[in-house]
Amino acid sequence: MVVKELPEVWRRRKYLGDVDQSLVGKSVTLCGWVQRRRVHGGVQFIILRDGTGTIQVSIHKDQVGKRAFGEAQKVTLESSVTVEGVVRTDKRAPGGLEVSARDVKIVSLADTWPIQKTAGKVFLLDKRHLHLRSPKVKAVMLVRTAVCRAIREFLDRDGFVEVHPPILISVAVEGGATLFPIDYFGKEAYLTQSGQLYLEAAITSLGKVYTMDPSFRAEKSRTRRHLTEFWEVECELPFATHEDAMKLEENLLTYICSYVKDQCEEELRLLKAKPVVPRPPFKRIKYDEAVRIARKAGLPVKWGEELGAEAERAVSTRFKDPFFIVGFPTVSRSFYHKPDPKDPKITLSSDLMAPGGYGELSSGGQRISDYDLLVKRIKEQALPLDNYKWYLDLRRYGIPPHAGFGLGIERTVRWICKLPHIRDACLFPRTPYRVYP
Amino acid sequence: MVVKELPEVWRRRKYLGDVDQSLVGKSVTLCGWVQRRRVHGGVQFIILRDGTGTIQVSIHKDQVGKRAFGEAQKVTLESSVTVEGVVRTDKRAPGGLEVSARDVKIVSLADTWPIQKTAGKVFLLDKRHLHLRSPKVKAVMLVRTAVCRAIREFLDRDGFVEVHPPILISVAVEGGATLFPIDYFGKEAYLTQSGQLYLEAAITSLGKVYTMDPSFRAEKSRTRRHLTEFWEVECELPFATHEDAMKLEENLLTYICSYVKDQCEEELRLLKAKPVVPRPPFKRIKYDEAVRIARKAGLPVKWGEELGAEAERAVSTRFKDPFFIVGFPTVSRSFYHKPDPKDPKITLSSDLMAPGGYGELSSGGQRISDYDLLVKRIKEQALPLDNYKWYLDLRRYGIPPHAGFGLGIERTVRWICKLPHIRDACLFPRTPYRVYP
Repeated sequence: MVVKELPEVWRRRKYLGDVDQSLVGKSVTLCGWVQRRRVHGGVQFIILRDGTGTIQVSIHKDQVGKRAFGEAQKVTLESSVTVEGVVRTDKRAPGGLEVSARDVKIVSLADTWPIQKTAGKVFLLDKRHLHLRSPKVKAVMLVRTAVCRAIREFLDRDGFVEVHPPILISVAVEGGATLFPIDYFGKEAYLTQSGQLYLEAAITSLGKVYTMDPSFRAEKSRTRRHLTEFWEVECELPFATHEDAMKLEENLLTYICSYVKDQCEEELRLLKAKPVVPRPPFKRIKYDEAVRIARKAGLPVKWGEELGAEAERAVSTRFKDPFFIVGFPTVSRSFYHKPDPKDPKITLSSDLMAPGGYGELSSGGQRISDYDLLVKRIKEQALPLDNYKWYLDLRRYGIPPHAGFGLGIERTVRWICKLPHIRDACLFPRTPYRVYP
Repeated sequence: MVVKELPEVWRRRKYLGDVDQSLVGKSVTLCGWVQRRRVHGGVQFIILRDGTGTIQVSIHKDQVGKRAFGEAQKVTLESSVTVEGVVRTDKRAPGGLEVSARDVKIVSLADTWPIQKTAGKVFLLDKRHLHLRSPKVKAVMLVRTAVCRAIREFLDRDGFVEVHPPILISVAVEGGATLFPIDYFGKEAYLTQSGQLYLEAAITSLGKVYTMDPSFRAEKSRTRRHLTEFWEVECELPFATHEDAMKLEENLLTYICSYVKDQCEEELRLLKAKPVVPRPPFKRIKYDEAVRIARKAGLPVKWGEELGAEAERAVSTRFKDPFFIVGFPTVSRSFYHKPDPKDPKITLSSDLMAPGGYGELSSGGQRISDYDLLVKRIKEQALPLDNYKWYLDLRRYGIPPHAGFGLGIERTVRWICKLPHIRDACLFPRTPYRVYP
């Protein structure tokens, strides 16, 4: 296969997203991939795609000459090409504009495209490196990009400092069962489950901090909302309570939804996902109430257990807007959650839930700032006290009450795009059964 | 240790960065840490710090009453406190403003601060969770945040789409020797060394893409410029050559430097790092020339070898501005680098170097777009062809010539801040001998 090099052509190219009414009658150079092609009345039509948009290109033999018309006849789906031509209005063309070609060159000719409309899920995941080009997958990726931009814009404006906690760690955040161990030059280390403990250290220097980065859970669960590798944004605030964390969560989620509604109109339409912008304050229900709802739905949830994927679905199906579940039992939560001083059986923590069965988007609360209480909780959960020495140290050197949360990027994208499975929110998803491509 | 909860006080607080001349004569509530304290003529002075700044607080017994004065007497370095008081101009105070206290409350009292001025490097790394509070470490972290913001601002405006390639991977990007293996539910997987191969897939859907995320190298080298875990920004461009990648690198680095110069004046002053903004186009020297310089400096570099840390230092010491080394030998580069059609012994690739001995900041070039040539190169480097099936597939389905690069975040921060060691550019550095705290 010979790939043509045409840098002088590429450098004068227009991106398809920039081809508009103002260019009608003008000559343009375009680069992209052949998304569709058809022949009608001796004229060839190509739908050309680049990262920024699509446009119809018409190729008339008498306008492009024999060589270029021959190239256009040879071109296959998903080949990359360059087109030189004139922009015209054409009511029949998608978008109302088309480019009438003067020249067409194949840059890289594609083999017969292997993805059929009838392709199954496993095949599409095996071919994810190609399936990325489908308009729907592309739309989801653009929504994901917008979600990340919205988060940073909101937090940067609100005075948060972005930091990068380590991925390779020596202590568990969420319990040892779901850690991926790694041989670190003969020492045992793990992949991080959350940057929270490190963010707690950072607040004493930098104030309000956040990170957006990958986390890992070695959980062999086959639900529609679990990945072994996922991204989350985590925020931590000094001199703050559980209440402050919840307010921030509400406002952040609202900002994300409003940003995506504005910026991704076309993508949401393509995905048939009605844009929703919630209105804070969000409703709050107690854990006890959530348990009652789950039981009513026939799920045998015991008080003190985590709500599983099934229970979350049952509860969140009952709501039309995002809501909080508050008052999780101390026995069900990680060691760092602050027990409610008025009722130490429950914690000052909450999960922010998406409605309609989508379930948990984020989890947060107030942390234990007291040294002795933290030691007690680490011992109660039978964790190795010695590994948490530095984390305990923070409590000896002036850490004030503080709170924070972690919001899952893929879960948020899944809910906004109304995707059947969380893996559809990833460029290359990682589940217990998949680490390829 | 009892930690006081004062949410009603915290919620009306002003951040120190917002205390300015406009507040003179007004009452304010402040929250922060005691960075310094002294007593002078019966008056107590505290330098209060929060993430946004510092201010002097004066505590007169007749103005705060006995209880609050007693609190102030008890307060230790790095305790967290709340202060209510009135803003005054005071020429003797750092910054020209001070707050005359009406009330002082200790929120969390710190033990005797364990870090002395004479502390050694290892001790400081062991206490990184506390050492983060030092003004210099804080300044470096703020420069790092600014570098990341600059990168995103530049690329977002230039039409790049941010994506998140996977961290857990099944194939090597830069050769197997420096991979961290991981047991992935019984299968072998690795931590990524670079997202490049995945970005190459993404360009066919999204056009120009970038990622900023962590990468890993299990390299047991003890140089001042290597980490086992580091962040980089990687860009990939379709319909582009090595030349286009270099132009983008020049403009991006220039933008970063100019942004940091604007936004981090105070931090750079504190670090005694003279702000520099380079001017593109950057000088280019050939690999052969770099080898000659290294040899003249007494280093036995053989043609065809990678330039090691020593050689890079020797070469980059000779320059006053960032520069490129071009024309690296094909034998020394990873399999995906495109050999120069005019001279296949060398590749269309380059390293962008910081001057003054700092060495490589980024590495980039044009990728092989041709299927057969890529198969040949994978075989020559004795890599398992089967694992690269999906990557080869891209060459069967219309990938045009494309190019990109990866710029190290810590290397860039190190150079801008003129840090002696790259680990100083991390919140919690990871080197072969350190995965704690």
